[in-house]
Amino acid sequence: MKLYDLPGPPSPRRIRIFLAEKGVEVETVPVNIREGEHMQEAFASKNKRRTIPALELDNGTVLTESDAILRYLEEKFPEPPLFGTDPEERAVVNNWLHIIDVDGFCAVADALRNSISRFENRALTGSRDIAQIPELAERGAKRIDYFFEDLEEQLNGQTYVAGDSYTVADICALVVVDFAGMAKKDIPDNCPNIKRWHEEVSARPSAQA
Amino acid sequence: MKLYDLPGPPSPRRIRIFLAEKGVEVETVPVNIREGEHMQEAFASKNKRRTIPALELDNGTVLTESDAILRYLEEKFPEPPLFGTDPEERAVVNNWLHIIDVDGFCAVADALRNSISRFENRALTGSRDIAQIPELAERGAKRIDYFFEDLEEQLNGQTYVAGDSYTVADICALVVVDFAGMAKKDIPDNCPNIKRWHEEVSARPSAQA
Repeated sequence: MKLYDLPGPPSPRRIRIFLAEKGVEVETVPVNIREGEHMQEAFASKNKRRTIPALELDNGTVLTESDAILRYLEEKFPEPPLFGTDPEERAVVNNWLHIIDVDGFCAVADALRNSISRFENRALTGSRDIAQIPELAERGAKRIDYFFEDLEEQLNGQTYVAGDSYTVADICALVVVDFAGMAKKDIPDNCPNIKRWHEEVSARPSAQA
Repeated sequence: MKLYDLPGPPSPRRIRIFLAEKGVEVETVPVNIREGEHMQEAFASKNKRRTIPALELDNGTVLTESDAILRYLEEKFPEPPLFGTDPEERAVVNNWLHIIDVDGFCAVADALRNSISRFENRALTGSRDIAQIPELAERGAKRIDYFFEDLEEQLNGQTYVAGDSYTVADICALVVVDFAGMAKKDIPDNCPNIKRWHEEVSARPSAQA
């Protein structure tokens, strides 16, 4: 398999941290989206969504969604398990993954991509032009506050997002919290649980991936 | 387990179709969101997100995200498999589930919830007031068009969304396409593949669930 990747943006970082936790190296192809390489034929013919990360499987299938890439890697490299170890644990991980994606990741993306000039007409990732909506940037910023509130409550009395074990939910939440920092939304002072958790998961070697 | 459910809205319909395909019945608790029952203590104490569907597990955990509910049910009731039968098939199903969720479901929700008076200040599901953004309704409507374009291409030359087998991706796509109808976005005339597929999946008994 081949991973189309670039350091910097939040989505591919999820995959790199995940692979680092597994202790696995995968062939990587850099795609410099800042120089528009994702819009050029070489990459666009592989991934018509023109997003990174993308994972090309040995059978030629190209996965374009981080969620699907993470689940595939979990199947191929099951140790250590990062999606939980029984159906009930996996259920909690999956529930939080969706919350982190919709309430966290999408909120930060709304806040950033609808406000910064370099995303003009690129308010959503993908191949189509999408105009910015300034009100949506404001709503995104407000929703980041809500996400922090909910995450703070979830981390009250437990070490990690989905319970007492480190899972892919911690990886995705870490990436969202750091992504929120790019939108000038740091962890609020009234969120000691998030601060404690963020310090711990950021200290793992995988966080540098 | 107990399923908190209501006929009508799109999200719980995904769960009911899925269960019907499995031939499984689950204890169901109706929650009449139109009469505000989801905001009352009896339900809100179970699900502070106040969304339906919700699945209460036997250990007391309450799953609030359809994606997590579907994956849990797949584990508990593996036959017939609806998430694919090997890692590569599952990867394609998972990739499409995320595309259907973000490009399809969220687009229709944006179009509807930011335009209809009964969703005033309820532009997103959940426990918080979120003001409508009329421009976002327009963007949602445009994104539904894009979703139809992509789904039409995906269904070209194959029977179902993720290949030659009926999967949960068909269930979620069916629910989104019918949800788009509520936003007055019917399947466009230049989408014969979607029309053929929609007729086929709608004819399955599960579609009435």
